[in-house]
Amino acid sequence: MTARFQFDIHATDGAARTGVIKMQRGAIRTPAFMPVGTAGTVKAMLPESVRSTGADILLGNTYHLMLRPTAERVDRLGGLHKFMNWDRPILTDSGGFQVMSLTQLRKITEEGVTFQSHLDGSKILLSPERSMEIQRLLGSDIVMSFDECTPFPATYDEAKTSMELSMRWARRSRDGFNSGEDHAARSALFGIVQGSVYNDLRFRSIDMLADIGFDGYAVGGLAVGEGQETMFKVLDFTMPRMPGTAPRYLMGVGKPDDLVGAVERGIDMFDCVLPTRSGRTGQGFTWGGAINLKNARHKDDTRPISDSCDCPACTQYSRAYVHHLIRAGEILGAMLLTWHNLQFYQDLMASLRQAISDGKLTAYANEFRARYGAGDIEPL
Amino acid sequence: MTARFQFDIHATDGAARTGVIKMQRGAIRTPAFMPVGTAGTVKAMLPESVRSTGADILLGNTYHLMLRPTAERVDRLGGLHKFMNWDRPILTDSGGFQVMSLTQLRKITEEGVTFQSHLDGSKILLSPERSMEIQRLLGSDIVMSFDECTPFPATYDEAKTSMELSMRWARRSRDGFNSGEDHAARSALFGIVQGSVYNDLRFRSIDMLADIGFDGYAVGGLAVGEGQETMFKVLDFTMPRMPGTAPRYLMGVGKPDDLVGAVERGIDMFDCVLPTRSGRTGQGFTWGGAINLKNARHKDDTRPISDSCDCPACTQYSRAYVHHLIRAGEILGAMLLTWHNLQFYQDLMASLRQAISDGKLTAYANEFRARYGAGDIEPL
Repeated sequence: MTARFQFDIHATDGAARTGVIKMQRGAIRTPAFMPVGTAGTVKAMLPESVRSTGADILLGNTYHLMLRPTAERVDRLGGLHKFMNWDRPILTDSGGFQVMSLTQLRKITEEGVTFQSHLDGSKILLSPERSMEIQRLLGSDIVMSFDECTPFPATYDEAKTSMELSMRWARRSRDGFNSGEDHAARSALFGIVQGSVYNDLRFRSIDMLADIGFDGYAVGGLAVGEGQETMFKVLDFTMPRMPGTAPRYLMGVGKPDDLVGAVERGIDMFDCVLPTRSGRTGQGFTWGGAINLKNARHKDDTRPISDSCDCPACTQYSRAYVHHLIRAGEILGAMLLTWHNLQFYQDLMASLRQAISDGKLTAYANEFRARYGAGDIEPL
Repeated sequence: MTARFQFDIHATDGAARTGVIKMQRGAIRTPAFMPVGTAGTVKAMLPESVRSTGADILLGNTYHLMLRPTAERVDRLGGLHKFMNWDRPILTDSGGFQVMSLTQLRKITEEGVTFQSHLDGSKILLSPERSMEIQRLLGSDIVMSFDECTPFPATYDEAKTSMELSMRWARRSRDGFNSGEDHAARSALFGIVQGSVYNDLRFRSIDMLADIGFDGYAVGGLAVGEGQETMFKVLDFTMPRMPGTAPRYLMGVGKPDDLVGAVERGIDMFDCVLPTRSGRTGQGFTWGGAINLKNARHKDDTRPISDSCDCPACTQYSRAYVHHLIRAGEILGAMLLTWHNLQFYQDLMASLRQAISDGKLTAYANEFRARYGAGDIEPL
């Protein structure tokens, strides 16, 4: 029988590692990028298409799903995997971040966060216990503990107060998770490090989480407007303190060069809406940088978005066609470009895993950055 | 070498026929339903998915494509088939119908129709010669002659004047088509019968078209608000007069029961936006009738849209999931429901072809109507 949760590191290169997380629903090759399936769907993609890009795990959003179709309904319908036709691992967030960023009239207390549903105006409490219950009802494989994502910028005192609340909630998350016995026997719980940009707060947060004990450790409170330089600085002092044998997850990151820099610093897992959201607004990722397919320079271009990409958008269609679809507001434009962007992200992760295995990550990362900054191919 | 255009009727049953149109890009089984690929895409579908439903031919819209990306650009990019990745036959309409229904400030003269582009405000003339040129540039397999779709209702005099203009335009369409020699050697030209609800006008139109000579004959000026009863009455007197050995195409039709009744009256080809458009608004077709997936009755329903359907929406997802996607405005909802609806239409056409082959069309049609009127399955 497959282990509940086992992380095997196959190779390291500097601070970076590559390996496999083994879970009952499947293996997750790390460093891993998790496409975001907000409301029970990776937008504009069939799940078999997401899988074909190389994704081993998806992310689902507790906040969206608890409001619609509701966690209880997903449970009655057989769980999120069956509902959305994805039988591999799913990580769910705790809902906390989106309650804070998407709702009005919210109120934080020691108990949790109270907010108003944008769908029917009802008043809802999201607490560590309720978040664990929702994630259990969804059938999540990797459950995230409920925390407060400290806004940026935050004063030291604000960051300290916020981090300490998150640590009390982390303990309650662990207890809540454990109480769902059947689910806890099959799934994993990750803690989330807070502390903003302050070394000692991050260290205290890590130590408190390690004391509670989690299967993996996420770095929270980044990718919230601090910029890449600050983000990397925080990782530089945070990562060496993180438990070495557990997966490290950088939440909500990021742009391709963010991923490369974070992998160099020892991150194992990522999620971000960027490849999917960009696919709906005309932005496509290439090894020469991100390009805007809406731009008139593509309208007569018979070449693919990326000539080294195996996705259907690149093997079967021209830039001119994708440009036309995006300009005409056609759904197929979002479908093709989303597919391409997810393929690009998974290809990048596969390259990073290979580079770490080969002990050539620094060279790979430098080459990536040089090329990625060089810009798009010349117009025809 | 495959014939340019050959229609073999394999079986008849009453006025209905089933057979195959052979063209260089592939065979078209009749009666055939052509999904509409307005702007170079069947909305929300990959072309291989459209093909998987059983579609042998698509329809493209001259009006949309001439404005964006323009016929000249499609030609430079290698033609519509290559542009949109569909290597089987494509029928293009003449643009006339949509100029009249979609544009402002249009003016009809003997020369053609002048209108203003909604994209850049430029003044454009669409004439029989220009329509033939555009359809040639697109690389259309079945070209439609340029006509005026007589509005409904029309007085006898209005219908007569309009029909006679269309017949002069049909002659100019034939001449324009023939002048594109290479293209004419590979493709087919259909004439369009007009004459509104008036027997003798329809007869004169048929005779004038037959005198010019076309590969197929379409019935135009129907599905424009006259209702099914009137449409069937017009077909009842029109169809017996139509050339017997050429395909007969009922333009812009229709609902499933419209298709069944028109096949019984001898129609071989159809096109309609209904299955694709409905797929984007929550309407799904079942053998018990059309259902609205937005309806709350589906929110906990673990059953497929149709238990006899092999499409991915029905084999991999519940009504509850499709309901959720449609309610949440998710693109995947449009993707799945469009796919299902196109599968339903192609399954219906396959059933009709089989019933004609078996000499059991009347029984099949009566059973279809009884079941289609009976309504959806009982709620769980």
